[in-house]
Amino acid sequence: MDGRILVPWEQNRENAPEQLTVEVYDGCGEPPAEVLDDVVFYVVPYGRVQQVRLMRRMPRLRAVQLLTAGYEHALPHLPPGVRLYNGRGLHDASTAEHAVALVLAAQRDLPRWAADQRAHVWDPHYTRSLAGCRVLIVGYGSIGAAIEERLRPFEVTVTRLARRARPASGVHGVEELHRLLPETDIVVVVTPLTPATRGLIGAAELAALPDDALVVNVGRGPVVDTEALLAERGRVRAALDVTDPEPLPADHPLWDAPGVLVTPHVGGGSTAFYPLAKRFVDEQLRRWAAGEPLVNRVSLDES
Amino acid sequence: MDGRILVPWEQNRENAPEQLTVEVYDGCGEPPAEVLDDVVFYVVPYGRVQQVRLMRRMPRLRAVQLLTAGYEHALPHLPPGVRLYNGRGLHDASTAEHAVALVLAAQRDLPRWAADQRAHVWDPHYTRSLAGCRVLIVGYGSIGAAIEERLRPFEVTVTRLARRARPASGVHGVEELHRLLPETDIVVVVTPLTPATRGLIGAAELAALPDDALVVNVGRGPVVDTEALLAERGRVRAALDVTDPEPLPADHPLWDAPGVLVTPHVGGGSTAFYPLAKRFVDEQLRRWAAGEPLVNRVSLDES
Repeated sequence: MDGRILVPWEQNRENAPEQLTVEVYDGCGEPPAEVLDDVVFYVVPYGRVQQVRLMRRMPRLRAVQLLTAGYEHALPHLPPGVRLYNGRGLHDASTAEHAVALVLAAQRDLPRWAADQRAHVWDPHYTRSLAGCRVLIVGYGSIGAAIEERLRPFEVTVTRLARRARPASGVHGVEELHRLLPETDIVVVVTPLTPATRGLIGAAELAALPDDALVVNVGRGPVVDTEALLAERGRVRAALDVTDPEPLPADHPLWDAPGVLVTPHVGGGSTAFYPLAKRFVDEQLRRWAAGEPLVNRVSLDES
Repeated sequence: MDGRILVPWEQNRENAPEQLTVEVYDGCGEPPAEVLDDVVFYVVPYGRVQQVRLMRRMPRLRAVQLLTAGYEHALPHLPPGVRLYNGRGLHDASTAEHAVALVLAAQRDLPRWAADQRAHVWDPHYTRSLAGCRVLIVGYGSIGAAIEERLRPFEVTVTRLARRARPASGVHGVEELHRLLPETDIVVVVTPLTPATRGLIGAAELAALPDDALVVNVGRGPVVDTEALLAERGRVRAALDVTDPEPLPADHPLWDAPGVLVTPHVGGGSTAFYPLAKRFVDEQLRRWAAGEPLVNRVSLDES
């Protein structure tokens, strides 16, 4: 078949339908100009998101596959007419796992125990628990559902919220956010970044939370207003896998804010991801060769 | 009714049947001698386990209620003929929650992120995940079942092991331990300490685990052989809420052993415990007043 396909993993080249011309590009350095000139389908290497910019130098490009669920970083580089596909679903298990890890770490004081261990101090004290907490999942989609599934056996109450209410699935619409926040102990933010979600959890929303509430963000940093969160430090706690700005500069006040736990955007990046992602790329290549529509197309009107 | 009852919480005195003589003893200091002389039922204050020794100075004592599941610390002080009751069940939710917190913390490198946060360093890397892991629960009882329930949505395989096989419940007997260990990624130890469980996870058992396996202990410290664990450091990881010795002295090598996470025996001590424990004591007082048998009696032949 006409044109080249760039894939991130050797497995994808090995498993590719034989009529395809497939080359491995792992994101280190750049492919030669004669390769770029001929690429029709580009799978952006995972963990090398800055290589989305190569799209501009692929004159024959027809389709781009991201392995992240977020795609806002790709939009400025996307040539007109090129179809965009994302990695939604591939990170559900990994991200949901990390979200629950953050919730438990915050409730059970794991950062304190880690500091005590480093200091060789055995000083037990009572902690909060997760049992009995009221959890609000903001941005209820496939990852939100995976988080709910993992939280449910911990004896919590889960409330679901998304942009639009879906009463049949028990999902509240975003217009109910302010009514729900005062009855919430733990907010888990898992929305993508769109104009509508930027700053969604701001000063008014944080102020509506009860004392000692916990805000967990595994979605995108700018969905939670950093300045507003800093203004509530000591009253509202936070566990953030994504921040705004990101990466967090060394002199940023979030690092030392009391009750704030930071991990460096590692929610989706665990061993749970790889086998799933490699099989997914194999399947997309099979569909490409067979002339079937690829899955996970990003509809650019939606955002 | 004849004799006094010592309870740890004001709620228990308020809710007690009126024919009982109930006093609050919170474990600080000691009750006066004329009170000790008259105690027939003693609820040992939670978190003050050393006050089990007061039993020796209660000549009329007929029953002792512990709020811990473990009772080995009470046995040396138990006068002949006094019935012993423990707090089994009261800590299930709290301990199971902590066990899963330790598993996730170890798999998702939370101690590293905590150290990076303190150093203001944003340095993401790929971590292990819990998804796909084979988990062996050693000492499958009510807490083990609560742990399994919480782990199951994380896409793991759970194997159950107890002293005696219970084939109808899918529980393997301890004689199968060595066969199961090489197929195990995560061992969760939740057994009480008995002569049979002391050192149950020793050099041979740790050696049978695959590289990079994780040993989680939320049972009793001496069930895992500390020296054997130290000998495997770097190959087998550990997340320990209980240790041997306990508390861990400041100069103990476990504190700095690579891949070892320590929390200071806080599994059962979270806010999830209190409402449950207070209601439990209320109920035991009601049974006492009504002449009904108390629940949670420790059968001393069993251990």
